[in-house]
Amino acid sequence: MTLIVINPNSSQTVTDGIDAALSPLRPLGVPIRCLTLAEGPPGIEDQAQADLTIAPMLRLAAAQTDASGFVIACFGDPGLYALRSRTTLPVQGIQEAAVMTALTLGHRFGVIAILPASIPRHLRAFGAMGVLDRLAGDRSLGLGVADLADADRSLAAMIATAKRLRDEDGADVLIMGCAGMAQYRAVLEAETGLPVVEPCQAAAAMAIGQITLGQSHHVSRG
Amino acid sequence: MTLIVINPNSSQTVTDGIDAALSPLRPLGVPIRCLTLAEGPPGIEDQAQADLTIAPMLRLAAAQTDASGFVIACFGDPGLYALRSRTTLPVQGIQEAAVMTALTLGHRFGVIAILPASIPRHLRAFGAMGVLDRLAGDRSLGLGVADLADADRSLAAMIATAKRLRDEDGADVLIMGCAGMAQYRAVLEAETGLPVVEPCQAAAAMAIGQITLGQSHHVSRG
Amino acid sequence: MTLIVINPNSSQTVTDGIDAALSPLRPLGVPIRCLTLAEGPPGIEDQAQADLTIAPMLRLAAAQTDASGFVIACFGDPGLYALRSRTTLPVQGIQEAAVMTALTLGHRFGVIAILPASIPRHLRAFGAMGVLDRLAGDRSLGLGVADLADADRSLAAMIATAKRLRDEDGADVLIMGCAGMAQYRAVLEAETGLPVVEPCQAAAAMAIGQITLGQSHHVSRG
Amino acid sequence: MTLIVINPNSSQTVTDGIDAALSPLRPLGVPIRCLTLAEGPPGIEDQAQADLTIAPMLRLAAAQTDASGFVIACFGDPGLYALRSRTTLPVQGIQEAAVMTALTLGHRFGVIAILPASIPRHLRAFGAMGVLDRLAGDRSLGLGVADLADADRSLAAMIATAKRLRDEDGADVLIMGCAGMAQYRAVLEAETGLPVVEPCQAAAAMAIGQITLGQSHHVSRG
Amino acid sequence: MTLIVINPNSSQTVTDGIDAALSPLRPLGVPIRCLTLAEGPPGIEDQAQADLTIAPMLRLAAAQTDASGFVIACFGDPGLYALRSRTTLPVQGIQEAAVMTALTLGHRFGVIAILPASIPRHLRAFGAMGVLDRLAGDRSLGLGVADLADADRSLAAMIATAKRLRDEDGADVLIMGCAGMAQYRAVLEAETGLPVVEPCQAAAAMAIGQITLGQSHHVSRG
Amino acid sequence: MTLIVINPNSSQTVTDGIDAALSPLRPLGVPIRCLTLAEGPPGIEDQAQADLTIAPMLRLAAAQTDASGFVIACFGDPGLYALRSRTTLPVQGIQEAAVMTALTLGHRFGVIAILPASIPRHLRAFGAMGVLDRLAGDRSLGLGVADLADADRSLAAMIATAKRLRDEDGADVLIMGCAGMAQYRAVLEAETGLPVVEPCQAAAAMAIGQITLGQSHHVSRG
Repeated sequence: MTLIVINPNSSQTVTDGIDAALSPLRPLGVPIRCLTLAEGPPGIEDQAQADLTIAPMLRLAAAQTDASGFVIACFGDPGLYALRSRTTLPVQGIQEAAVMTALTLGHRFGVIAILPASIPRHLRAFGAMGVLDRLAGDRSLGLGVADLADADRSLAAMIATAKRLRDEDGADVLIMGCAGMAQYRAVLEAETGLPVVEPCQAAAAMAIGQITLGQSHHVSRG
Repeated sequence: MTLIVINPNSSQTVTDGIDAALSPLRPLGVPIRCLTLAEGPPGIEDQAQADLTIAPMLRLAAAQTDASGFVIACFGDPGLYALRSRTTLPVQGIQEAAVMTALTLGHRFGVIAILPASIPRHLRAFGAMGVLDRLAGDRSLGLGVADLADADRSLAAMIATAKRLRDEDGADVLIMGCAGMAQYRAVLEAETGLPVVEPCQAAAAMAIGQITLGQSHHVSRG
Repeated sequence: MTLIVINPNSSQTVTDGIDAALSPLRPLGVPIRCLTLAEGPPGIEDQAQADLTIAPMLRLAAAQTDASGFVIACFGDPGLYALRSRTTLPVQGIQEAAVMTALTLGHRFGVIAILPASIPRHLRAFGAMGVLDRLAGDRSLGLGVADLADADRSLAAMIATAKRLRDEDGADVLIMGCAGMAQYRAVLEAETGLPVVEPCQAAAAMAIGQITLGQSHHVSRG
Repeated sequence: MTLIVINPNSSQTVTDGIDAALSPLRPLGVPIRCLTLAEGPPGIEDQAQADLTIAPMLRLAAAQTDASGFVIACFGDPGLYALRSRTTLPVQGIQEAAVMTALTLGHRFGVIAILPASIPRHLRAFGAMGVLDRLAGDRSLGLGVADLADADRSLAAMIATAKRLRDEDGADVLIMGCAGMAQYRAVLEAETGLPVVEPCQAAAAMAIGQITLGQSHHVSRG
Repeated sequence: MTLIVINPNSSQTVTDGIDAALSPLRPLGVPIRCLTLAEGPPGIEDQAQADLTIAPMLRLAAAQTDASGFVIACFGDPGLYALRSRTTLPVQGIQEAAVMTALTLGHRFGVIAILPASIPRHLRAFGAMGVLDRLAGDRSLGLGVADLADADRSLAAMIATAKRLRDEDGADVLIMGCAGMAQYRAVLEAETGLPVVEPCQAAAAMAIGQITLGQSHHVSRG
Repeated sequence: MTLIVINPNSSQTVTDGIDAALSPLRPLGVPIRCLTLAEGPPGIEDQAQADLTIAPMLRLAAAQTDASGFVIACFGDPGLYALRSRTTLPVQGIQEAAVMTALTLGHRFGVIAILPASIPRHLRAFGAMGVLDRLAGDRSLGLGVADLADADRSLAAMIATAKRLRDEDGADVLIMGCAGMAQYRAVLEAETGLPVVEPCQAAAAMAIGQITLGQSHHVSRG
């Protein structure tokens, strides 16, 4: 019985960050294995890149014969419904699970996006989820690629973005719109006074609950 | 560190059913203590009865000094926001958590209500949650009080209601709209071919995840 | 035949303000009796305080044997559905009635909230009402408790908040999100050029209409 | 100070029915004058007919120099926003006011339409009002024109339609989707056990409340 | 076979602008005839003016015996449903068609309104269309009538408004909320980097498609 | 200048049907080239199959160096946003374009789905589009694979499904939820009296309009 967490980009650093993010959940006793999708891009920047991870992700998932559940660890949830159409095991996407968790922690959620281009993707997903009435705002960091590589600048931009979501948009719970940055959750909570949902943690926690309860989903082939 | 589950009606039988429903979650290692609200009515039948449980429930919750989180175990979630305004610990309502869980297991959820009178209450809550676009239908069993005491008739009515939600309303995931009937979850899944969410299980699983992750919520005094 | 208006906080000053607000309606000929809930808190600041007024409010309402209808005069409408589950007489909540009235006076309503903590409560209620598409914004005065006691500062903050709702959020009708401040309605209308709904007036007017028409509601015990 | 109620069709019989429907409101002391639009069609059957009443209705309204408020008494509310763009006096449409009233009497409203062709018009209006989440259903009587002239058949069809809205669609409050049939309100309430809103009554009651409170609306010229 | 485009205001200059805007569509081979409504006002500024164009517009439309389809070329779509209730030929309104087109070019549309008073009218229409979840914002130019006559000031205000819709409201596609300004489309696209929908073009293109496909609509007399 | 229409399944018969469906549009003068995706499955039955067409579809699209616009001709719109993230040329999906067209032909659209499993996929897409308030219903034919190969049974089931959407769900415009069946459009219109949108026609017509108008979309890389 193992929870398989797939990072659909090819960055081992991101996978390591996801793995570290999930360490608080290990005492629950469900083994967690984090995998990097070798065929993925270094980072997912547009819808085409996201969709192109689905074929190798499905193969990677199918090869995990000891799996009792899956997490797709990219905000945007590429292949979430594709994988659900191929297995009855619990499959969580970090975007969807983060939203469902946030809805129990505050009334209006704010999303800290890394890149502005991902916001329409998020909005399509929130629309498909039917939760737009609960969205306070979705804002990107406003950093160029070079600045994103600078941890201090990234954190400062995250804090500033979080405060705008709280003060201008009325968010009372925040979602980190990316994987692999769980180390900043505590400081974001301290700086804003708001609960912050790290999406890999939220998805893994929900998957562990569903695995433990024997919750399978319906394969409608749809 | 203990998860406190409060049954706001005074029926020890219902509390025992809730306790049994949660047994699959005990191996996760978070202690779970199920309490009966002595001051509650034998069963909650209208909004006034639901609201009148809030005062004693808040007192009972405040007295659990070892609590690391709470579940309010009545579909309708009486006092959910009241308790959240008094503690930063995770507080789950079984109605809300069941919906959030169901939204990861299917696209349109159907609710099996016990009494027709509870449906407007459910709809107000789903509206407040902002998830009405995902609701397939909410149907009651159509049984009188005497028939509800008959386990065979209740189960038959539950199965028939579940099938109407699937076939007439298009539900692809079902929620049991009451506490204490977890023993029927498996048969409902078998009869309908759909995932069935037992709300006490869903709420306790989400609470355990949030406790484990140190997820607190914001006390806005709101 | 009497309309009973219950102020669920214990402030006689607030009750007196409500009573004065309703004086333009007295010529309609339906007697109006405004009551203070002795067991209520001096002011309602969070959901727990709101919910704890329900039990004594239901007792107080039940004791008014000459009642032909009720208004619950706290923005937030505590116990609105509880009282409706106990009587078929018309029961208006000032929040709900203010919204329904505002929707006939403008397209997008703005709410002037006293405290920021009440905004999530309002949003849950507007969601339950299903009217979020008509909400322009809900903004609080941004005053501390000391400043709220200063009438001049309160009025200045109300005017400033009203103008932000009009200019930044696009509101074309305003709702005063509290009871007992009807004396400021005229100046708010003059300063903003927008219609302003005082919620106790709106609720009492709707209640008088329903009493006069013999409109009862359905007690679904839900 | 007079409330002007305009029947935009040319049927004096309908106007007489409206006048009778409003008799319970006369003791409130606000004079009510019901007018027939001579230039209107005998009955309004499509959107073009509805829109063509606007020009003469605006002239008729402008000629009522003692008006303190208006009701447009055709379900469909033709010219509601046109008249509001020409006066700051309260203007109620019977469709809009009936919905706002119904939302305080039940959770999901059902509409009894006379002709099936009017349903898309209703739905556009409910969408513009932003209240579709509260709509249970909108059903027409299923009668031909000849049968509509038969009072017994009309009433029987109304009762049958009302019961379908209650039983199949889940309505817990009903709206009569036409003017001039107030005499059937009591029997519909008795037959269904649900509150029934007669739209002319609802609109006149709201208009009287707003007139009494000196509530004007904003003329945005929009 | 001719597409009839009716400008419901009496300005031949506006009609000429519409005619010029449609020149790129002429090579498709469907004849297009642009008509000015002599009975219309010089410009439509409020709902009453809009509604008063319907009667002469219906007469003008009925007189075009070679029509194979219609476009009503005023943002606000006066008489759209009235004309649809009188013919089964395709009838496009420029507001509706612009929205439907924009929804295929971006995720959130922003509307450049000329006058602030038209915004509530737009919002009612978007609500009736059921597309409010896709609306980023609707902003007016903030110019007085004198400034609107100044082409340079108008264009500068349009560009500034377009950038606010993009930067503050998150629009990724823009709609010009008026007829007769197609000459500015290219510069707006260049200045903002966003697709810009000119509503007369969008409506005529959709009408030509429907005419070519023999697409008629249902005359429900509703 | 050529419009490229890609059938993402590998059935040449389906492509031929699409090609025939578009023949009424050829007189408009924009060349249309219909391509079969050799790497696609014979038919798309679940989300995984749909998503797996995206990689080869993007390659096929990129190879069409004379393209001035694209249509993705599978109801479900696989890869619609992926292709939009790789080109600024107009890209239409037949599902999205059919909906946008239907919204100008009736108030509530009904969808004739082939397989029940595709309905949740449709609903997710309609949610992302933000048009659920306009959906009357989405019903599948209820045929097994063998019966679907029988043209007479398929047509009979289509007609029956169309009538249920009209009579039980209140649809006043219908969408054929598949490609390659345009030959049945006329009979469906005749049998139901409702406008029927064939999605390949709708998408190609919108694409031709946008190509002709030089309408490009924004590549946000999102």
